Amino acid sequence: MYILNIGNELLFGKTINTNAAFIAEKLYETGIEVEKTIVIPDLPDIIFHTITDAFKETDWIITTGGLGPTKDDMTKNAVAKYFGTNLSIDNITLQYLIKMFAERGWELDEVNRKQAEIPAGATVLLNKNGTAPGFWMEKKGKTLIALQGVPFEMQEILTESVIPLLKIKYKEIHSVAHKNILTSGIGESMLAQLIEKWENELPKELTLAYLPSPGQVLLRLTARSESEEAAKKIIDNQLPALLELINSYLVSTEGETSVEVVSRLLIKSNKRLAVAESCTGGYISHLITSQPGSSQYFEGGIVSYSNQVKRDILNVREANLKKFGAVSEMVVTDMAINAMSLFETEYSIATSGIAGPGGETEDKPVGLVWIAVASPTKVVAQKFLFGKNGGREVIIKRAAMAALNMLRVELLKNAQ
Amino acid sequence: MYILNIGNELLFGKTINTNAAFIAEKLYETGIEVEKTIVIPDLPDIIFHTITDAFKETDWIITTGGLGPTKDDMTKNAVAKYFGTNLSIDNITLQYLIKMFAERGWELDEVNRKQAEIPAGATVLLNKNGTAPGFWMEKKGKTLIALQGVPFEMQEILTESVIPLLKIKYKEIHSVAHKNILTSGIGESMLAQLIEKWENELPKELTLAYLPSPGQVLLRLTARSESEEAAKKIIDNQLPALLELINSYLVSTEGETSVEVVSRLLIKSNKRLAVAESCTGGYISHLITSQPGSSQYFEGGIVSYSNQVKRDILNVREANLKKFGAVSEMVVTDMAINAMSLFETEYSIATSGIAGPGGETEDKPVGLVWIAVASPTKVVAQKFLFGKNGGREVIIKRAAMAALNMLRVELLKNAQ
Repeated sequence: MYILNIGNELLFGKTINTNAAFIAEKLYETGIEVEKTIVIPDLPDIIFHTITDAFKETDWIITTGGLGPTKDDMTKNAVAKYFGTNLSIDNITLQYLIKMFAERGWELDEVNRKQAEIPAGATVLLNKNGTAPGFWMEKKGKTLIALQGVPFEMQEILTESVIPLLKIKYKEIHSVAHKNILTSGIGESMLAQLIEKWENELPKELTLAYLPSPGQVLLRLTARSESEEAAKKIIDNQLPALLELINSYLVSTEGETSVEVVSRLLIKSNKRLAVAESCTGGYISHLITSQPGSSQYFEGGIVSYSNQVKRDILNVREANLKKFGAVSEMVVTDMAINAMSLFETEYSIATSGIAGPGGETEDKPVGLVWIAVASPTKVVAQKFLFGKNGGREVIIKRAAMAALNMLRVELLKNAQ
Repeated sequence: MYILNIGNELLFGKTINTNAAFIAEKLYETGIEVEKTIVIPDLPDIIFHTITDAFKETDWIITTGGLGPTKDDMTKNAVAKYFGTNLSIDNITLQYLIKMFAERGWELDEVNRKQAEIPAGATVLLNKNGTAPGFWMEKKGKTLIALQGVPFEMQEILTESVIPLLKIKYKEIHSVAHKNILTSGIGESMLAQLIEKWENELPKELTLAYLPSPGQVLLRLTARSESEEAAKKIIDNQLPALLELINSYLVSTEGETSVEVVSRLLIKSNKRLAVAESCTGGYISHLITSQPGSSQYFEGGIVSYSNQVKRDILNVREANLKKFGAVSEMVVTDMAINAMSLFETEYSIATSGIAGPGGETEDKPVGLVWIAVASPTKVVAQKFLFGKNGGREVIIKRAAMAALNMLRVELLKNAQ
């Protein structure tokens, strides 16, 4: 399967091609392999030639973009030309457009009437979230599925119409099973070393991918076999040995994120959380409150960016600030304990570090972060050296993931 | 110019291809057009054939990925094969690797020694942020520039080495000029209507692109002419009329983000800022503290997620919470005033709203957000209805951008 994304904006750099990733993921989950993704501009000749060339290498193409009503309805013409057909009005779409416009008190004009045109012989894929329909065109063993460029329009049609149809029509669907294993607190290369022996002995129907992001590595196992059942079994056979090896870094095998795991554990134990952030500057609070329902356990947080706020609002001891500096075990411990009492929670997280690029001193390099987690029974503090690589943004993200991971470990201990 | 991204992970869907966007943007700014982006898996044959086919259509390819030390050093071999050459050790890289390993107390092993290999005849592009070098290979009118898949490694080499070299060597650099005009507080379609007449009368050497993101629309003007000077003049001729039309929504014509404008205005007037966030949950603090140097003006913030925190820490009047509810003009005004006095700043921002999907009431729908900005002379509060489209994440982002925009307007008023 090839993905062909059509749109000038995708070649300017300001717009990131999230459509390709969304389609690839849905296909991957269905057991369909994406062999190539191509991005081209809205130019009729280039669309036509790219489709022609791609169909020399594959029988299946999904396109996005170029279906709009006016200047950029390029895709329909190029597809019709490739399949040797014309555009013709699809009556269901026409009725839908007339009704949609009437509801707004408008009449369907000539420009918008053209939106009901699709290549003759194609099956329409009705667009509930917009006006331009998609379509499914099949002829002489070649299939082209044309979808919208607007992400939420495309996503709905892909998920609701295209994937179910592909499950019936696509001939090379592998019976696959997947398992996502999220780890935190260990880098990609260390993790690779840790599981090297296990990985080398995997059967060839099973593939392993490393998908790193700051502070986390997602391991994705994919098995192929004659049935989904059999594929699942291949994974189940290898999983226990892997989980034993990575036990202390394992966040979830159930597709949960670090925040979701922490949320679940807090809600289950009916405990509440507060956060005191210095170098992470609100990012941990943001991660938590991005989850619907976080108010069930999240009381709030303080971003104590200046020493004055650390002292006056968070009650960090002046003596500790003076003697050890803001980035120190003593200060981050004070921050965690006082956040817990100020917000009246059972758990808290505190961070203090040097996110850079400035602020470095001789014994405190950029990337040094102290993190503390306070729980009903104790406070643990840990020092991290995240280095300069990737800059401020990556240091903030790594520190946030490390803090959530420390909290997760404490929650698990207390749950036992 | 073609971009060729190599990596299985880019075809699985879990990893979004941000490298293509980054490279495209840098090239675009340099006046180099990206004609096609292709994503393929880490398979030697496919890499070789894709390079071969692409060079039939273009003279220039930038690749990313496939340069790692072990299993996936596929790109180097494929490039060597295409150019009819072998891999050979680059001595500068070898010395660099030996030194880098020695600093960590390690000896360079055989696997890592291979990282110093590049196609014979290529120019090495040294990688300061990692081990695998990039390279620039030129032969018989075809040029291939091989870069890393790891974003921050690739970005540094692209910006520091490749773009300056391209400015000298790339033959089809158009004389272009760009102007980015950032707006906030108006949606894409309203903005398009507002400037429709102006847009329709633009000369054909000038193109306008709308690049929307939650709460903002970036207008990008691109002019092409026989010289950069002449291209700039085309933009300068049209700009004043545009700026007059969009004046009240204009954030920056100098490439600054909303946060950067606010930062600059605060630093210039030597004033300090605090934030009290409910529905935005730390996101505004995160945006501010993502900027290096934000400690110059940012004192800190409170994420007052529960009513208890609003009352006990932020001193919001109990009577206001009871009578008007947390999402109200009175409460958000209390939050802003009290954050200002608690953190001892001259300015503050406060947000309170319903980010959804839950929490809706009959008169308070999902997407309703109250925002207040307190300044030395007054407090302004404004009600926003951001709707449900895009969900929680988009509501949070829109609210944050609206808050920064309100602060910007107040700062500008007080600067006059």
